[in-house]
This record gives sequence, structure tokens and C-alpha cells, in this order.
Amino acid sequence: MMGTILQSRLLPIKLSHSSLLFSPSQHSRSNLKFTSKSSPSTITMASIKVHGVPMSTATMRVLAALYEKELEFELIPVDMRAGAHKQEPFLSLNPFGQIPALQDGDLTLFESRAITEYIADEYSEKGEKLMCPGCNKVKALTKVWLNVEGQQFDPIASKIAFERVFKGMFGMTTDPAAVQDLEGKLVRVLDIYEARLSKSEFLACDCFTLADLHHLPVIHYLMGTDSKALFESRPKVCEWVKKITARPAWAKVVDLQKQ
Amino acid sequence: MMGTILQSRLLPIKLSHSSLLFSPSQHSRSNLKFTSKSSPSTITMASIKVHGVPMSTATMRVLAALYEKELEFELIPVDMRAGAHKQEPFLSLNPFGQIPALQDGDLTLFESRAITEYIADEYSEKGEKLMCPGCNKVKALTKVWLNVEGQQFDPIASKIAFERVFKGMFGMTTDPAAVQDLEGKLVRVLDIYEARLSKSEFLACDCFTLADLHHLPVIHYLMGTDSKALFESRPKVCEWVKKITARPAWAKVVDLQKQ
Repeated sequence: MMGTILQSRLLPIKLSHSSLLFSPSQHSRSNLKFTSKSSPSTITMASIKVHGVPMSTATMRVLAALYEKELEFELIPVDMRAGAHKQEPFLSLNPFGQIPALQDGDLTLFESRAITEYIADEYSEKGEKLMCPGCNKVKALTKVWLNVEGQQFDPIASKIAFERVFKGMFGMTTDPAAVQDLEGKLVRVLDIYEARLSKSEFLACDCFTLADLHHLPVIHYLMGTDSKALFESRPKVCEWVKKITARPAWAKVVDLQKQ
Repeated sequence: MMGTILQSRLLPIKLSHSSLLFSPSQHSRSNLKFTSKSSPSTITMASIKVHGVPMSTATMRVLAALYEKELEFELIPVDMRAGAHKQEPFLSLNPFGQIPALQDGDLTLFESRAITEYIADEYSEKGEKLMCPGCNKVKALTKVWLNVEGQQFDPIASKIAFERVFKGMFGMTTDPAAVQDLEGKLVRVLDIYEARLSKSEFLACDCFTLADLHHLPVIHYLMGTDSKALFESRPKVCEWVKKITARPAWAKVVDLQKQ
């Protein structure tokens, strides 16, 4: 639902095939330039297509990975207001009817965290590594903290974002009791993060990995709410949030929401 | 909590260090044999230690992977009744205070799904593969269906198992309205599974992978409840459940609950 708000802003500059083509290098010079200024028929097509909307946390997660990898991609808006994600042809991309879906040549993937792992593996030589370098034992730490985000942080934090941010967008009313309960749970998670980040610069190791990146979309929204205090009152968590949200690749994701 | 029920049965045969040592080959001949019948001080120590209880779904997930890989391991019961998982030394293994935790030499891991992925990677040449063989594009399909289990199936199915199975164990009362709501959601997931399993023998590909294995513990419990009908009324899902629950490695996990 939330994506439809931004999508209406994207529509005036859509191409004939309702998609936007981004080149990371061009994007760094001037936001939202296409790879060609000629007619749509001569536009260079990126092999990577993301079906989603730039305000959706799951789509943002995938976009952040693509920008970190400096990959060219095409963003194809999904008209969620019209329920396009619950109908064909979208259901052939993701039978669960959720954005985003990714196409890379003849490969189709869904589930944002699976997509980012694919991007990190398939394009391992491009841009940022996004995984701990080293043996399986070291890589396993990234997997632990990937699962911590998916199983411990996100189920709580994304519900707070829903209460504090998205309910307002949809004309719904925040439930203060729910927020209080959820924040009590988030505090316990962030205390563990504080201890972890006292031992390593990032969650999995001293390198920025997908385990950090996956947190970015929900943290981005929470930092615009009173929940910000929970992050800022913990010195190591505060420092980590500043570092990961200051990444140039993340700035490009946030910029996409302003177009 | 639920693990404490079984744990009390394990205690009479505990070793001096409160642990049980399993050798897959010996286990196949006779359940719960130790690798040595001599005094505890001469017992061969497995390098892999699992801290958990055999009735916990997350512990079962890890045990299934270890048996599929035919690895020797030591199961160290955690006295959850006494709250051992919320105290040191367990919190040094997993700061979230949840079972299981795994130690392999000097490596300590938590989050059951991260542990099984580590086992599949680190011991790739042993036992079953547990991942789709092939290039990154093929492997990505395993990741998609690993995330489907973690993000779509488990949040619903584990709540049904809690309502229908574990609440009874703890003297709590099942909430029929909650079950009905959850089953309505599970039906939608299982319809997608039915379509998927009409195209490939297992969820990710034609091979049994971690994406299938991760479902086993919760399905095991649900098959002992009326929710069984949701699985059995879908031919492909029914066939898949029969295939994955009939695996010898899974039978060993279930056997552990009977000791």
C-alpha cells in the first residue's frame, strides 16, 4: 500500500514500458537520469529488473544492495493501489503477491533477503563485498546476524514502523499501548546490539555486510519517530546507525523516494 | 520451557559434564549409545556440541541437519525449567537466551537456521548435500525458499503449534479463534506450496535441501493435531510431507524425544 504514494510521483517520468533505468555512476552525478536520452526504443536495457516501489522497506533493502554493488538496474513500479501485486503478471514473479521481485536475465527471485544474498554471491567481484571475507566459519557469523535481523529485530522493529509511520500514511491511528510493548522488546534487542558492537565495528565482523544493510530500511523510518531515542541512547548502536545510514549507496536509495 | 519435560528423562543417563554423545552410525544400530562404554573420563569428545533440548523445534532443526550430514555430535541439555538459558554460561553462547547454540571447535553459533547453513557449507562433502547443486543462480532458489519458510510459513505455523500443542503441555488453553485465523493464513501459504510442488519434487529444486528440512519440526508437531488435514488435503503437499518426514535422519531426531 505505502508504495502507491510515491508511485504517483514516478509516473510522469515513466518510460513506455513503465520502468525507470538507473546507472549508478550517472545517478551519482544527477539523480534519476536514464542511460539514454533518446527514444525509449533505443534505451539500453539493464539485465537486472526490480519490480517494487522505493518506499517499501523490502524494496529498499534490494535497492541498497544493488547500489552497494554499483550494478545497473531497472526499477519497474508496481501499481499497488490497483492491486497489481495480487494479480498476474506479478503473481508469476512472486506467488505470495509481495514486492519486490527481481529478474536477472532468465532468473526470477523474490523474498528481499534472498535477493540481496544472490546479488552478493553472483556479483562478488563488484562494488562492496557485503559478506565477511574468509572461511566458512567466518562467513557463518554473517549468517547468524542475518538471522538475528530477520528473526529478532525485524518482527519487532517493522511493527513499530507500521504503528508510528505507515498507519499515519493510511489514515489509521497509532496504538500507544502496542508501541510501548514493542519498544520494551526492542530495547532488549538493542542492548544485545550494544554489547555486540562494543566487540566489532559492524554486527557480523569489522566489515559492513548484508547483516547491517538489511536493517537500513526500518531504521531509516524509525529515525524519523520518537523511537529514535532508543538507538541514540546507546553509544555503540548510535555510532553504528550513523555509519550505515551515511553510506553513499544508502543515500541513493533515500534519494529515490524524493523523485 | 517445553524442553524441560524431556530433559528430566535424559538426566538419569547424563555424563559427568551433563552431556550426551551421539555417533550417527551407532545411533542407527541402537538409539542413544555413547561412543564409549568406559568411564566418562575416557569418552571420545565430539568437536560439535549442541546446547538444546530434543523437543524444541529450533533444536530439532539443527539435529536434523547433523544427522543428514552423518556428523558425530554431543547434545548438552539446557535446564530451561531452571532458566539456564537466561543465565551465564549460556548467555555467552547466545546473548538472546534462546536454544540451541552450537559449538564447533572454537566457533560458537546461534540462530538455528544460521547453524544449519553453516553445517551444510562446512561439511559439504559429508552426507546429504542439503543445498541445490550448481551455480549461484540455482543456489539462489534455495535461499528464496529458505526465506519463505522463515518469513511466510514459520510465523504462522509455529503459532498454530503453540496453540494446539505447547499450550496444552504448559497447562494453558488453546484459543480457537486464534487457531481459525492462523489456519486461514496457513491455507494461503499451502496453496502456493501445492503449486510449487507441482513443478519440482522439493521446494527449491528436485533435491531435498535445507529449505525442506527447516519445515520438519513444526510440521512434525502439526501432524499430531487437526491441522494435519490442511496438509493432507493438498496432494502434492501431502506427498512432500510424507517424503520429508520419512527420511532416516528425521526418524533419529524423533527417536531422541522418546529417550
